Amino acid sequence: GITGPFFWSFLIFLKSQFCQITVITVIVHLLFLQVCEWKEPEELTLLLDLELRATGEPQHKLLQRVKDVAKYSIKTSHPRFFNQQFAGVDYHSLAGRFLTESLNTNLFTYEVAPVFVLMETEVLRGLRQLVGWTEGDGIFCPGGSTSNMYAMNLARYRLFPDVKSQGLWGLPRLTIFTSPESHYSVKKGAAYLGIGTDNVILVKVDDGGRMRPDDLDEKIKLAKSQGSVPFLVSCTSGTTVQGAFDPLDRIADVCEKHELWMHVDAAWGGSVLFSKQHRHLMKGVDRANSVAWNPHKMLVAGLQCSALLLKDTTNLLKQCHSANATYLFQQDKFYDVNLDVGDKSVQCSRKVDCLKLWLMWKAVGSDGLEERVDKAFIHVRYLVEQMKKREGFHLLGEPEFVNVCFWYIPPSLRGKEGKADYQDRLAKVAPVIKERMMKQGTMMVGYQPLGNRVNFFRVIVFSPLVSQRDLDFFLNEIERLGNDL
Amino acid sequence: GITGPFFWSFLIFLKSQFCQITVITVIVHLLFLQVCEWKEPEELTLLLDLELRATGEPQHKLLQRVKDVAKYSIKTSHPRFFNQQFAGVDYHSLAGRFLTESLNTNLFTYEVAPVFVLMETEVLRGLRQLVGWTEGDGIFCPGGSTSNMYAMNLARYRLFPDVKSQGLWGLPRLTIFTSPESHYSVKKGAAYLGIGTDNVILVKVDDGGRMRPDDLDEKIKLAKSQGSVPFLVSCTSGTTVQGAFDPLDRIADVCEKHELWMHVDAAWGGSVLFSKQHRHLMKGVDRANSVAWNPHKMLVAGLQCSALLLKDTTNLLKQCHSANATYLFQQDKFYDVNLDVGDKSVQCSRKVDCLKLWLMWKAVGSDGLEERVDKAFIHVRYLVEQMKKREGFHLLGEPEFVNVCFWYIPPSLRGKEGKADYQDRLAKVAPVIKERMMKQGTMMVGYQPLGNRVNFFRVIVFSPLVSQRDLDFFLNEIERLGNDL
Repeated sequence: GITGPFFWSFLIFLKSQFCQITVITVIVHLLFLQVCEWKEPEELTLLLDLELRATGEPQHKLLQRVKDVAKYSIKTSHPRFFNQQFAGVDYHSLAGRFLTESLNTNLFTYEVAPVFVLMETEVLRGLRQLVGWTEGDGIFCPGGSTSNMYAMNLARYRLFPDVKSQGLWGLPRLTIFTSPESHYSVKKGAAYLGIGTDNVILVKVDDGGRMRPDDLDEKIKLAKSQGSVPFLVSCTSGTTVQGAFDPLDRIADVCEKHELWMHVDAAWGGSVLFSKQHRHLMKGVDRANSVAWNPHKMLVAGLQCSALLLKDTTNLLKQCHSANATYLFQQDKFYDVNLDVGDKSVQCSRKVDCLKLWLMWKAVGSDGLEERVDKAFIHVRYLVEQMKKREGFHLLGEPEFVNVCFWYIPPSLRGKEGKADYQDRLAKVAPVIKERMMKQGTMMVGYQPLGNRVNFFRVIVFSPLVSQRDLDFFLNEIERLGNDL
Repeated sequence: GITGPFFWSFLIFLKSQFCQITVITVIVHLLFLQVCEWKEPEELTLLLDLELRATGEPQHKLLQRVKDVAKYSIKTSHPRFFNQQFAGVDYHSLAGRFLTESLNTNLFTYEVAPVFVLMETEVLRGLRQLVGWTEGDGIFCPGGSTSNMYAMNLARYRLFPDVKSQGLWGLPRLTIFTSPESHYSVKKGAAYLGIGTDNVILVKVDDGGRMRPDDLDEKIKLAKSQGSVPFLVSCTSGTTVQGAFDPLDRIADVCEKHELWMHVDAAWGGSVLFSKQHRHLMKGVDRANSVAWNPHKMLVAGLQCSALLLKDTTNLLKQCHSANATYLFQQDKFYDVNLDVGDKSVQCSRKVDCLKLWLMWKAVGSDGLEERVDKAFIHVRYLVEQMKKREGFHLLGEPEFVNVCFWYIPPSLRGKEGKADYQDRLAKVAPVIKERMMKQGTMMVGYQPLGNRVNFFRVIVFSPLVSQRDLDFFLNEIERLGNDL
């Protein structure tokens, strides 16, 4: 069963596939037309023959299965995949991922992951330096939601260390503050950690979707007056939909005044810290207690690569999460057991997520990563300018980041803003265009409502593979698909 | 920066590496001698040149870095890596992992992961069938600890749905029951979820490390009489150290009597369900509410592959974890939004962990996986027989599973059991042997104390690459390394 031959065939197939992807950058429209090959679930189930059986299959059949999986999967590295906060491919990172999979180890002790224990430390140090911290702590987590939850647990533990052993019963009601445009993981975390979503207090935002420090101060005072104990402010650098950056410096003032843990969810926006030109968006981040940052998003490190960075130097992460399992974290080892980082995590098995980022960073340098970030902003400026030149594209506002939110107004709705059914009709435009683009497979972009604003598109532009041609195509394609609505 | 050429070189290098690993099965000792190449952290840091700089590096230097990472990493797929509950390699699974990395998508919506949404459903169905459930639910998690915590959260939510919004404050003190030999994630989960480690009540075990149902019943009654609300029994199928299987059928009786959620942490032992000969170890598992099972352990699916299986058919997982984010889980999509499985998770980004298992399962069939499980038991029986024939190997007890726990008694300690310092001296044997084997790089095996039993080795035998020769080598090597102690 442990066959080499199949693996050779797979590598050869893989090589041919990567040829195609590389060629994209040169002749994108000829070889690799489709972002997706839409199939209804019933049909796809039949095509893939998913059923698991008692007997194995011959090599040629397996290779066909691999090809089918690739064929019907979304090509997220296609330059016209604008659908999510991940996209594109970096081959250094991909090599790092292959190497990680081949070495197949667990990041919990120095004895089974000597290279990666040291490497993770170095990568975290590099990221912390960009935040502005010369010391501190951190860990890679399975996604930004987990990083945000860790921050929540650490903030709670710092205030009430007994919570680890006694739970929440002896404690007053704890409250968390965040904006309504923050990531949903803040609420998920509150539910999961036993705090409750009702105890996540939503702070007002300004027109651009940025948390208002004055309202934060008021909400904290109000919560205190009602007998609850505020313990965490979760700010956002790069909100999911609009890409807004909360004003960290002014929020830090409020947090200091009330002695609250300041967490910055920079899962999406953190990468601006690489850019001398754009890092001002996160001015004040060095005053935070913790920062969540996902290099798998804008930096194209590959899923998953998600760092939680901490200013703390008191080993809070380990104290809060440790269970001191004697079978894994023996204290009588022959090396420095501080290198056994596993007890900083609530996971036991933990994937190696640092190598792909490290290898890419080594390959292109901080300068190369800065260039990518700056290029994304240039693309967004171009896209916004083009939208303003075209009838039918209405921006929600000037983008602060690389999310461009807009309504496409089909000709039949133009000038009808005053009509009673205008909003209802507008709300139906994006879903129909989305369906058409998926079924034709030409590109992918997401849409959503937000507060009282009906469905609008959110196009996200950062993949290093994107060119101006792709942006022009994007606008033309939206018009082509929505013109008759 | 997005260079193809480097990737070609990497693939060529990778191919040469895999050649070596494949050849292992034939001429293991000639080409691939070392399990590890031990370096002190200071020296390794220098060798790897980990520092991240402003400028990038040329291709030949990068390729050297890749080689160094591989050189100094532990060869966990080496047949003499007996250190953890992961080991070995299956090339179908590895191909699946490469494909997963190349396709780089997120398992949260059908629109970005159509193939994997359907595939995960099918793999979970296959695993549930082995548990004995014809319907139910489930999800892949980033490790068994997360699966165990999910079960904890689900059990809590089923009993008190308001906990999601209101947190734990309005509730009576909740208690969890598990054995002292269960995995440390039960305590970690209790801390993380706000329940508190003091509220994890430890049930007595028998001589083999199996939970005692009579004591469970008593402890539950006692907890109730003290005013707490028992809500979860977390049993273990395959404990971490001894590989013990809690008596599920009898525990199920107790759980039914008290109407408690019965969770089975079968992260390690679950794979016996593939074996007609050995599945009796988990008799009664179909009566559980949830099962955690990590195919990345005994089935060699590759880190990470960890399933939580649920008997529930009321969509509890989604109700408990959902946040209904409108930017991701729009309800006006053109396809069945029940296919958007992301809201079942507390993660947002979630890796595709099903493909590697699916591909391996397709390749070797349930029969092939059964064969691997059975072969592991045969190897263990051989190893135990050999140990009994040799002076100096003292088993803790007859192994129930593929963990073999033993003390190596060096000649100087034999017959000295009565001496006052015997236990102290014995406790120091395993760490010294471990240090020697690491520094010589010949093999790896773990040790630990347990309760009042001082340091003993736990050798874990399941890698499909292991042969009887490796087992003989293991015994000889322990003797060689510990003979003078």
